[in-house]
Amino acid sequence: MNALKTSNPGALEELAERFGAQLSTAEAVRRNHATVEGFHPDLPPDAVLMARSTDEVSDAVRICARHGLPIIPYGAGSSVEGHVLAPQGGLTIDLSEMNAILAINAPDLDARVQAGVTRKQLNTALRDQGLFFPVDPGADATIGGMVSTRASGTTTVRYGGMRANVMGLTVVLPSGEVITTGGRARKSSAGYDLTGLFTGAEGTLGVITEIQVRLHGIPEEVASAVCTFETLEGAVNTVIDAVQYGLPMARMEVLDALQMKAVNAYSHTDYPEQPTLFLEFHGTPAGVKEQAEIFGELASGHGGGDFQWSTAQEDRDRLWDARHKAYFAALALAPGKVALTTDVCVPVSRLAECILETRADIDASGLTGPILGHVGDGNFHAILLVDPSDADESARVKAAADRLIERALSVGGTCTGEHGVGLGKKKHLLAEQGAAVAVMAAVKRAMDPQNLMNPGKIF
Amino acid sequence: MNALKTSNPGALEELAERFGAQLSTAEAVRRNHATVEGFHPDLPPDAVLMARSTDEVSDAVRICARHGLPIIPYGAGSSVEGHVLAPQGGLTIDLSEMNAILAINAPDLDARVQAGVTRKQLNTALRDQGLFFPVDPGADATIGGMVSTRASGTTTVRYGGMRANVMGLTVVLPSGEVITTGGRARKSSAGYDLTGLFTGAEGTLGVITEIQVRLHGIPEEVASAVCTFETLEGAVNTVIDAVQYGLPMARMEVLDALQMKAVNAYSHTDYPEQPTLFLEFHGTPAGVKEQAEIFGELASGHGGGDFQWSTAQEDRDRLWDARHKAYFAALALAPGKVALTTDVCVPVSRLAECILETRADIDASGLTGPILGHVGDGNFHAILLVDPSDADESARVKAAADRLIERALSVGGTCTGEHGVGLGKKKHLLAEQGAAVAVMAAVKRAMDPQNLMNPGKIF
Repeated sequence: MNALKTSNPGALEELAERFGAQLSTAEAVRRNHATVEGFHPDLPPDAVLMARSTDEVSDAVRICARHGLPIIPYGAGSSVEGHVLAPQGGLTIDLSEMNAILAINAPDLDARVQAGVTRKQLNTALRDQGLFFPVDPGADATIGGMVSTRASGTTTVRYGGMRANVMGLTVVLPSGEVITTGGRARKSSAGYDLTGLFTGAEGTLGVITEIQVRLHGIPEEVASAVCTFETLEGAVNTVIDAVQYGLPMARMEVLDALQMKAVNAYSHTDYPEQPTLFLEFHGTPAGVKEQAEIFGELASGHGGGDFQWSTAQEDRDRLWDARHKAYFAALALAPGKVALTTDVCVPVSRLAECILETRADIDASGLTGPILGHVGDGNFHAILLVDPSDADESARVKAAADRLIERALSVGGTCTGEHGVGLGKKKHLLAEQGAAVAVMAAVKRAMDPQNLMNPGKIF
Repeated sequence: MNALKTSNPGALEELAERFGAQLSTAEAVRRNHATVEGFHPDLPPDAVLMARSTDEVSDAVRICARHGLPIIPYGAGSSVEGHVLAPQGGLTIDLSEMNAILAINAPDLDARVQAGVTRKQLNTALRDQGLFFPVDPGADATIGGMVSTRASGTTTVRYGGMRANVMGLTVVLPSGEVITTGGRARKSSAGYDLTGLFTGAEGTLGVITEIQVRLHGIPEEVASAVCTFETLEGAVNTVIDAVQYGLPMARMEVLDALQMKAVNAYSHTDYPEQPTLFLEFHGTPAGVKEQAEIFGELASGHGGGDFQWSTAQEDRDRLWDARHKAYFAALALAPGKVALTTDVCVPVSRLAECILETRADIDASGLTGPILGHVGDGNFHAILLVDPSDADESARVKAAADRLIERALSVGGTCTGEHGVGLGKKKHLLAEQGAAVAVMAAVKRAMDPQNLMNPGKIF
């Protein structure tokens, strides 16, 4: 694929003419769009466009295509794999002002949103209709960004991630042409699954501007609980048992003792600082009671203590807010350090050994790194804290993250369950997917022959 | 895309040398592989290969690629859109002898099978482990064929179709190269979703030889029921209410009065010959009881009569066997005729009007055509019986099928919920997906530049 120049005055001039004050080349704005979570260098774009419509995105892409200027789609900037960085310069198209909820079809349990709508914004709009959108990465990400990284979250074990909850898209192709994919039917076998192809393509195939999403009814009864364990092994094995039992749990999150310490300090809670499960049960009142009883028996067989229950909305919101802020809580363990956050996903039967070996490895490496995750799916994260100016610590963090991924791959897992490849996991993608990566690259070349769309990511 | 010759002696000679008696050019064998369900012309291939391994498929594809001979993957031949026909001649690769179940990982709820394993074969192997594979098109299709048409079935409303239940694939590419996609993790965001791209590609991108599938635990309690309604509208509206209520129904099938008459005659049952729902409830005993009570209330509000319950496995098997044979039952309504079977899927809120208008249209056209379907997903079928030698009836059947699809598209639906595009729905795919079809074609050209893989299908 072509190397591209990092500055392109012709393109910027034409963009400025078309978009006026919506386009900024101010250093503060460009740097602001290249300040990302995680352990990445600063790589700002040449300019930032605040887009307001699909037509505007199309016009911008056409201008970029004519001049060979790279395009980086931008939502909330909450990716942890450097997806919004501009290693080859280019135009960042910020979609955060395209934040209209275009339609809510309550009887069909679907909605259409612009790409800049955030998950919390959508759920606020849905609440009084008794509906919710389930996918919940920690950050208040945009729906467009969540499509692009194939995001998932705490409820994926029950309701699926973005792959299961995206029905169709409006996409601006690298030529500037606009297509719609999928539709409003709950299933279809009408041609290639382009919706699925763009979901997880990390902005390398086009700019997503609208999304048709599946919704779910808020269950009659919702009960959240916190359960503390003597050992991390006991907590993880309880989850494995629940998965194998077929319990329809809505949320099953593990947080290790270090993460619980971080949560207490950051969210002003007073949970025991031991390995802990954050749980949620959805169903009818009788169904929730039945699930909770079965889960309680499984937990007590693995050293689980009493359950702290929350059924009031306010208490539940506080609990899950603490969980969603786990990343920032972990960062606060060592002020001034940044985090290399990595995530893997493994077959559930290999989860306990994989988490325990990782815990031991981080400790033996002399690093500070809480472990937590969506363990019902076999997915967990390590948040490895590092002082980027400390070369030795940086090297130890990178080596521990690499070993975690090798460990996951060795048991049939994946190098990323939900964060994506971005800049950070290109070599791991090759190790995992082998010759299939060449097929992905062929698809990329066919759809984006100039390699303009988010170049340097995935490949 | 290139036109290809229908006979290619150089390729056949080399294939015969490599495969000996596994290759057949006998007319009976070639015709047998081109005798398909539905209203399609006979289009036999030049030869049929009984493949026994991925390596053999790879060798065959390499020979075909060298000589420019088209390749048609073949499973059980139960497609209704002519997927296994050979409009440009070529080599049919019959995968039905690649029918080994390679691994069942009960703790992880997954399995790996060769492409020729059928859904019933897999479920028989799983039963004593308390597991099942949910996707159930009417025919005992192969898992490979079900991947290729993005099949679904009666349980899709609860467990998802092939898209949700395929985790990874082994695929022989048009070059003969073998890749594996996906893996054993329950989710991943590692690069483009190639598994999803091949799922529903109808054999136009490669030959699928192995599939990693998701399994589900057989629920503690399973109860099936038949409920008869005064009107088709009442039956459909009950389903719509159940979907909107969020009842976790495992199966919700509607059969109209004509289809019930066909079922009784073909399966020697004595159901009332009125609009009917075939239902199944999965869960704990308390959960099933609760669901059944709520469903009963919804049904009685729409003129639903008493429920005939079946909880014994044998009774349930008889009920669902009758449902799965609905296509053959419909055919038997008019011996000597064939069926143009078509399926659409629409947003659930538009389902009642779409089914009722279709019923009226078929009747007004003087045709015999039962309607039935997986209505919990908004998906239904019309089985239009036709004497192919009767030009007038053929024209009326095609026109009614076209109007059904136009009706579905006009309410935001899709031209095929689960049968695929094949030879029969290419114009409807264009009407539905518009400019997106050109993107599909670009992907096709990138992956199969010679247009060797199942040419003439989809595009």
